Amino acid sequence: MAVYTEVADEDLAAFVERYDIGRLLSCKGIAEGVENSNFLVHTEAGHFILTLYEKRVDPADLPFFLGLMQHLAARDISCPTPLVAGDGRMLGTLADRPAAMVTFLDGMWVRRPRPEHCAALGAGLAALHLAGADFPMSRRNALSVTDWRPLFDKSAAEADTVAAGLAREIAEELDALERAWPGGLPSGVIHADLFPDNVFFIGTELSGLIDFYFACTDAFAYDVAICLNAWCFEPDLSFNVTKARALLNAYRRVRPFTPAEFRALPLLARGAALRFLLTRLHDWLRVPPGALVTPKDPLEYLKKLRFHRSVSSASAYGLDA
Amino acid sequence: MAVYTEVADEDLAAFVERYDIGRLLSCKGIAEGVENSNFLVHTEAGHFILTLYEKRVDPADLPFFLGLMQHLAARDISCPTPLVAGDGRMLGTLADRPAAMVTFLDGMWVRRPRPEHCAALGAGLAALHLAGADFPMSRRNALSVTDWRPLFDKSAAEADTVAAGLAREIAEELDALERAWPGGLPSGVIHADLFPDNVFFIGTELSGLIDFYFACTDAFAYDVAICLNAWCFEPDLSFNVTKARALLNAYRRVRPFTPAEFRALPLLARGAALRFLLTRLHDWLRVPPGALVTPKDPLEYLKKLRFHRSVSSASAYGLDA
Repeated sequence: MAVYTEVADEDLAAFVERYDIGRLLSCKGIAEGVENSNFLVHTEAGHFILTLYEKRVDPADLPFFLGLMQHLAARDISCPTPLVAGDGRMLGTLADRPAAMVTFLDGMWVRRPRPEHCAALGAGLAALHLAGADFPMSRRNALSVTDWRPLFDKSAAEADTVAAGLAREIAEELDALERAWPGGLPSGVIHADLFPDNVFFIGTELSGLIDFYFACTDAFAYDVAICLNAWCFEPDLSFNVTKARALLNAYRRVRPFTPAEFRALPLLARGAALRFLLTRLHDWLRVPPGALVTPKDPLEYLKKLRFHRSVSSASAYGLDA
Repeated sequence: MAVYTEVADEDLAAFVERYDIGRLLSCKGIAEGVENSNFLVHTEAGHFILTLYEKRVDPADLPFFLGLMQHLAARDISCPTPLVAGDGRMLGTLADRPAAMVTFLDGMWVRRPRPEHCAALGAGLAALHLAGADFPMSRRNALSVTDWRPLFDKSAAEADTVAAGLAREIAEELDALERAWPGGLPSGVIHADLFPDNVFFIGTELSGLIDFYFACTDAFAYDVAICLNAWCFEPDLSFNVTKARALLNAYRRVRPFTPAEFRALPLLARGAALRFLLTRLHDWLRVPPGALVTPKDPLEYLKKLRFHRSVSSASAYGLDA
């Protein structure tokens, strides 16, 4: 459910007038997303999404995010394209917040992805990695292996209130991952949060990738590992190898894995599971009283982590060497 | 903020296929309204609003509401027009709720109405009253004078916790209104909830009337009285006679007031203020812990009620006899 900022009529009209998109005809708050306020805007030129960046996004990162979307869209990746205002800028201010207007993308996110969806995702993710190769800006992944321990330190004392033995299991996992985390894998721009609600489909055709607000510079295979976690487990947390095989094979038809990536995949998948376990644990322990949003269960990612720990090679994901 | 029902992909697609509007391309929950769940739907045929009726709407009333919108739209009132499915029905079922699809209307509601908006509203309201004259169905106003006392009885014991002396003031007002409430005024279909958020504008042009879920059969002038309360007070609750005059004069150019209506207007305005005071008081005293929606202040309508009690004739609203 969206928590959103109310915008005054005149301010909205003035903001829209900065773009060459005709008269404002309609503006409705969208009940999706919790990080930012999103509005579906209709003008004489078409439909757009207006985003007000709320406090969880660092304004210093916005030129990277908006520049990336512009770069990818110019290379035929179907993603929101920021509009450039009359003053040449993509970023403006509305209701005292940084704000941008992007193109509207048709499509809907899939609540229960099937193997066809996973295949389309794999191909789309590989195309994203290739299209980002010549993007000139970079942004450090603020939630990578070196960030996990300081993040865990904030929750360690209370972790066992969520599940007995959780603190110890995370600490051991952190030790193992910090020791073994691979360097030197092929890297570039990754999405870093390509969960089903950030991928639009029309039928089984991928129609758009959205929400680039975790995008950063990191190993491509780590992005793949995030998707394995987000797309290939069933609601009962069993791993669906048919979906994983579809995702990985479609990916490598567009961008082949290097041998080092192939070898690293189980470890990267453990790391990706730990990353979401840690952020969810952090949020779970800090739910404000009367919160509007139910936090996501961290233990879902503990179970996924254990699965990946049991895997000895990427062939367990259905991938032939 | 909207509280809304999640709809499964397949159920939504099947629901949309019942209409002759092409393939489903997009569906987004709208963060407006608290009574129902609303989604903005894009298909190959255009944009539509999908409404799931939540528990505050009595399903038995839906044929009246949907039939009314169809009737008004056929008479050039700009309001949502229900789509008729292949089975000939306007009402269907989705996610175990009654559901309907209506046309999308451009326009935005005005947070700070100006006299021009009030004039457009007056003309639109009169046109609505005329267009509804030959609508064959009727629905009793469930929040009219005879309903106020039973409604107050539920809050009377706690009323003074909201403001000292409130219970007594309401009780005296109820006595007075029950005694003097006029019968026999020109009647027909009224909207009964035409607050600014239910009226869309593009600039100062009225582009649509929405949310007919309080519509009923009652005195036309009572609908006018509701609008005087909803549109003609400033944020500090001073009465803006320029706005009232604009509203009333625009109304009567389309549908002239009878002498009885003219005489009754101050009393009807008191009644309308009491009606919203009572429903707000009821909701205010029953906010569930952790509620998502801030209830509206009942005392706003106490102050409006006192203003109308101080008025001796409709000329105080800027209306010449």
